[in-house]
Amino acid sequence: MSGELYTVPARCGCAVRLRKGQIIRIINTPGSQVCDTWLFNSDDLSEFSSMEHTRAYIDKIIPKEGDALVTNQRRPIGTLLTDTSPGIHDTLIAACDLHRYTNLGVTEYHDSCADNMRLALNAIGLRAREVPQPLNLWMNIPVNADNSISWLPTVSKAGDYVEIRAELDCIVVMSACPQDIVPINSCDPQPVHFYVAD
Amino acid sequence: MSGELYTVPARCGCAVRLRKGQIIRIINTPGSQVCDTWLFNSDDLSEFSSMEHTRAYIDKIIPKEGDALVTNQRRPIGTLLTDTSPGIHDTLIAACDLHRYTNLGVTEYHDSCADNMRLALNAIGLRAREVPQPLNLWMNIPVNADNSISWLPTVSKAGDYVEIRAELDCIVVMSACPQDIVPINSCDPQPVHFYVAD
Repeated sequence: MSGELYTVPARCGCAVRLRKGQIIRIINTPGSQVCDTWLFNSDDLSEFSSMEHTRAYIDKIIPKEGDALVTNQRRPIGTLLTDTSPGIHDTLIAACDLHRYTNLGVTEYHDSCADNMRLALNAIGLRAREVPQPLNLWMNIPVNADNSISWLPTVSKAGDYVEIRAELDCIVVMSACPQDIVPINSCDPQPVHFYVAD
Repeated sequence: MSGELYTVPARCGCAVRLRKGQIIRIINTPGSQVCDTWLFNSDDLSEFSSMEHTRAYIDKIIPKEGDALVTNQRRPIGTLLTDTSPGIHDTLIAACDLHRYTNLGVTEYHDSCADNMRLALNAIGLRAREVPQPLNLWMNIPVNADNSISWLPTVSKAGDYVEIRAELDCIVVMSACPQDIVPINSCDPQPVHFYVAD
């Protein structure tokens, strides 16, 4: 993929506009990093990628190559075209936020994916009325046979990437997850990178 | 439990106010019925039971007896006190809505849990700005080893019930799910019933 390589700095977020048909490649540069990802309809931020509707649409809890990401109006906003990683991502766990870190015993400000989403949209003059359930790329949350879940490091390798094609004009928001207490990022938050192609 | 027995008619919804500490018993009268359930903070409808936050809080995809139901601010709004059923419920699947039935080939109006939620709140003069992911009582959506999901009839028996204690003053909304195409209600939507006790 040619074009400019952009960085989502460690612990930070970034928003990028895609026209319908454009493709974003999101790269897990260190391999160990989770990237919380949202797609918002550019024309109406109250329509966005919804994991609870996507699970029902694809009959899976994790999308695979070829699967649609659908909105809260149950229409495709993106397609997961390519995934060079072993395909372990998460759709079950809310974006980390101040309440999460407070519950984990943090007493001062902590970066969070929820704030990163808000700040990334704010940086392009936008505001969403809520923080939807993200597609947590590379986050490894297995569902065990007893319906418990585990919080594990990623199984992806350095340079793994996913490509998502926009099926609507949309805004993609990414957060290089700053979680450094629970070991989902191997307790060492790192940057991720992305390209956009026509 | 003494007091009045209320009915949520088949394919319909109902909202009831609970003060902190009150207990609602929701009864699967036919055994085969799914009941989509939401708890809203009475003082601020933008705070509500959130399954993506609850899964992270309890480290499970299905709450069990003793587990908290937490809000999108990660604080308990209810506690699942009692469950006489085998404990199979769902937190993964969005409330059915018009888009769902359109995608299933329905061309006319179809009752839906999303509309039932809106109408039940409207009946007491309230309006929520969104339809959150419900706690789908008795809905049987197993997650298979390959991360696919299945849509199966309930495993509960007639008269099974759950009891939820309000941890905040809240409004409980229930919808006797009208899904009659996918067999989650054995294709025969029925009423559910409830009591409220101090």
